Amino acid sequence: MNAPAPLPLRIEPLTRAAFAPFGEVIETAGATAFPINVGTTTRYHDLAQVELAGESPRTLVNIFEGKAWHAPIAIRMLERHPLGSQAFYPVDGGRMLIVVAPPGELDESQIRAFISAPDQGVNYARGTWHHPLLCLQHPGRFIVVDRGGEGHNCDEQVLKQPLSVLNLQ
Amino acid sequence: MNAPAPLPLRIEPLTRAAFAPFGEVIETAGATAFPINVGTTTRYHDLAQVELAGESPRTLVNIFEGKAWHAPIAIRMLERHPLGSQAFYPVDGGRMLIVVAPPGELDESQIRAFISAPDQGVNYARGTWHHPLLCLQHPGRFIVVDRGGEGHNCDEQVLKQPLSVLNLQ
Repeated sequence: MNAPAPLPLRIEPLTRAAFAPFGEVIETAGATAFPINVGTTTRYHDLAQVELAGESPRTLVNIFEGKAWHAPIAIRMLERHPLGSQAFYPVDGGRMLIVVAPPGELDESQIRAFISAPDQGVNYARGTWHHPLLCLQHPGRFIVVDRGGEGHNCDEQVLKQPLSVLNLQ
Repeated sequence: MNAPAPLPLRIEPLTRAAFAPFGEVIETAGATAFPINVGTTTRYHDLAQVELAGESPRTLVNIFEGKAWHAPIAIRMLERHPLGSQAFYPVDGGRMLIVVAPPGELDESQIRAFISAPDQGVNYARGTWHHPLLCLQHPGRFIVVDRGGEGHNCDEQVLKQPLSVLNLQ
């Protein structure tokens, strides 16, 4: 038996409110901000809830370099990190297709999709289902802040009903 | 009595080896790297030693927006964070003048200066003396990963002998 044909997945605007069930949008707009360094720097403060669970966890700072994806993009699986959050922020203006579902047992009817602006990142909360990096149109580099340490920290799940993003507008 | 006239401070190339006494250079060149996401992404792994000491610490992800600095730049003070590291990575290609001295009692004879490339960041190790953000030529934004939590986490010290960076080459 073949897999079912993909269903189209609608793109929503990436806002703090819309993304709240999945983690945080990392952006200066709307952030807590204050001057530091005798007024020569503005600090946009504490933009992501970094979560570190499990045995001997520590914070990792990494750079991810993603290939360019073009429409249509098939969404066939999601993954989650049960022991920690994972934050992405572009360092060369890359835009991401972000596909997520709430933590807990995967409910495919709750899958949602967003596209980030060049000055937006996201932090996936611990356990949030998400598609691996989908960098749009051009290869892109991202600062990634996630968890290191002992223990199993990645679950992958193939979708019963694959989805497809047909239009990246 | 007036402060002594500034002494010129020489710029050194920013390399992992030269910066090792102060923390890490965050860059893909020379990093541990491996493919993830079925080969669609390269992970440059664990580029900074994030240190979180003191009471109820947690990792903060912030954006710093720094004003543009132009030569000559007077170095009159340094600061240190006794409870945690602090990492900077540019998100719009900004270059930093990095002025540092080793942890411990400040030894002004050990002050060194570096300029970062647009694809380099730095992580100041816990206790490393460093000048606050000096973004060169243009205003710039940086992802900053540092420590939140209780306790005193910033010491500032005015230099007995001010320094000056005359030439940003």
